[in-house]
Amino acid sequence: MFSERMNRVRARMQELGVDVLLLSVGADLPWLTGYEALETERLTMLVLPRDGDATLVVPHLEAARVEERPAAFSVAPWDETDDPVAVVARLAAAPATAAIGDHTWARFLLDLQRALPRASFRKGSEITAPLRTVKDAFEVDALRDAAAAVDGIVIEMRERSFEGRTEKAVHRELVQRMLDAGHERANFAIVGSGPNGASPHHEPGGRVIEAGDVVVCDFGGSMRHYCSDITRLFVVGEPSQEVRDTYDVLFGAQEQAVRSATVGTPCAEVDATARRIITDAGFGDRFIHRTGHGIGVETHEDPYIVAGNTTPLVAGNVFSVEPGIYLPGRFGLRLEDIVVATADGPERLNHAPRDLAVVD
Amino acid sequence: MFSERMNRVRARMQELGVDVLLLSVGADLPWLTGYEALETERLTMLVLPRDGDATLVVPHLEAARVEERPAAFSVAPWDETDDPVAVVARLAAAPATAAIGDHTWARFLLDLQRALPRASFRKGSEITAPLRTVKDAFEVDALRDAAAAVDGIVIEMRERSFEGRTEKAVHRELVQRMLDAGHERANFAIVGSGPNGASPHHEPGGRVIEAGDVVVCDFGGSMRHYCSDITRLFVVGEPSQEVRDTYDVLFGAQEQAVRSATVGTPCAEVDATARRIITDAGFGDRFIHRTGHGIGVETHEDPYIVAGNTTPLVAGNVFSVEPGIYLPGRFGLRLEDIVVATADGPERLNHAPRDLAVVD
Repeated sequence: MFSERMNRVRARMQELGVDVLLLSVGADLPWLTGYEALETERLTMLVLPRDGDATLVVPHLEAARVEERPAAFSVAPWDETDDPVAVVARLAAAPATAAIGDHTWARFLLDLQRALPRASFRKGSEITAPLRTVKDAFEVDALRDAAAAVDGIVIEMRERSFEGRTEKAVHRELVQRMLDAGHERANFAIVGSGPNGASPHHEPGGRVIEAGDVVVCDFGGSMRHYCSDITRLFVVGEPSQEVRDTYDVLFGAQEQAVRSATVGTPCAEVDATARRIITDAGFGDRFIHRTGHGIGVETHEDPYIVAGNTTPLVAGNVFSVEPGIYLPGRFGLRLEDIVVATADGPERLNHAPRDLAVVD
Repeated sequence: MFSERMNRVRARMQELGVDVLLLSVGADLPWLTGYEALETERLTMLVLPRDGDATLVVPHLEAARVEERPAAFSVAPWDETDDPVAVVARLAAAPATAAIGDHTWARFLLDLQRALPRASFRKGSEITAPLRTVKDAFEVDALRDAAAAVDGIVIEMRERSFEGRTEKAVHRELVQRMLDAGHERANFAIVGSGPNGASPHHEPGGRVIEAGDVVVCDFGGSMRHYCSDITRLFVVGEPSQEVRDTYDVLFGAQEQAVRSATVGTPCAEVDATARRIITDAGFGDRFIHRTGHGIGVETHEDPYIVAGNTTPLVAGNVFSVEPGIYLPGRFGLRLEDIVVATADGPERLNHAPRDLAVVD
């Protein structure tokens, strides 16, 4: 799998005229090699020349973390008083064009630009994103398993009490359950209750959940390197008519957007489908974000389901469909599933009930 | 506090001739303003002109997360189809020299270099690191509290059973206990048992802890934004004579290194003190990392206690002292405390017992 990816990366480097690819922290490196760099001030960087052998420059004290992957790369450990940028620059061998991983720290890019003054730098994602965005069967299965794990958590949460607990306590429970359900990492768990639900990326805090609150739970993690991401809505006691009516609009928008996500449809059109329904119901200015994002080894990656993205969906694209309606000072609603585009049409990977779950 | 920091930052920009400071993900932004950027593909960036007002460029859907801080900065939300780099470039107003936060994603630096072709870029840490490295009384207290919290965990762990559990299970317990002890975030928890302890940054895995194992536990998190970091050693049953003897060398090295960390002593000399003792005992090539790192709002920051760093310690420097001895295939030992340099001499912030804890 890794050697096939390496071949596709080299082919794309050829196509774009990139002499060397430099990958550090972020998802490109584990996607390409299985090894993930620790995010620290000690530089880890894969140096992949288009036509030469790959070398992983790694701090000496982390060399033992790197399992033997002789087919993928050799290892060049550096000691505490060495200059790892100089090591990378030497291995890069005076490239005319270098591509650098998108999430690499700016300080290392500045150092590399100084060490390789004649190189033109571009984003690593120009090489990797078009490859990563089309998932093979193995990857879709991994995403399906991760989705099933968080579906299970949603079903468990429907039986839990929310009233009287803080957002932070529910956040902690979601993190715990993701780990218990087989995720190696909980990436995030948004819990927005009552008026806080109107802030899409609300930071769970000390607010105590009350009767009548809508609680937006949006959470995800990584399972065997592939990400989950789901949003469901919980209401403490019977929802008001206004919440029900607003939810019905949202449900319809999400449903129609998923149905529209067929192979060949531009990403922007999926966004427009959801937005049209929400706008027609009078909530256009309350849907303040794009409809979705691709998902894979990263929670957010190509393809983005957003106005202006005219790229048509292809089979193997996996992405979220998550419209929202946010009423500041009152409540917020969002509904999210992961969807894979297939030749037979869009397929949801999440199957947990999508209704407003009434909880204690 | 924040306005005083802002004044010191502006003074240093003046000193270095930097026209604008651009801060995104990483610790500089919360240190300077109290607001922490989410690490996503949606750019958050503080634009701080040396002589003008600061503006936080932030995704629209995250604007509600930004509490009102009118003294610190105004907020410029961008919509999903806007180009945030163009917004930053306009606010930066054609700088000759821009400093950019060290952890900013390379993709944004590349975009900014294109948008500001006449600007020379340098590292944000050139401005912030010398300021952050000297802690005031409030910061030392916060670091003391975080240290006390992990000390408590060490004391609890001395009563726990290790035998028969996986490294991963102990890792989970440490993460849980850090959160229970008041940390808002568990940053890491290394659990290296038996031969795995010889890999300083070992990733806790499925290895089952056995009788006779030495278990290296190195963990830390963030409490009210300030970091903890401690390493202690647990032995399942009575340690062998070899483990005892090696530990005695390490204990002496750590003790002497801490004592050497007086105001005015070069950082490299603290490293040399530990290294001399370990080398004299015949383990010089088994101590494969620097002796320590500064700590504050980041786990690793200036001052680094490493060969070549001739900077003398000043009162208010807070840093780890953590020598180690690693015997590949057999076991590893590391002992770590956080220390503050004061006019009255070095003061340990950690007080948990430092002996080899014998556990079940």
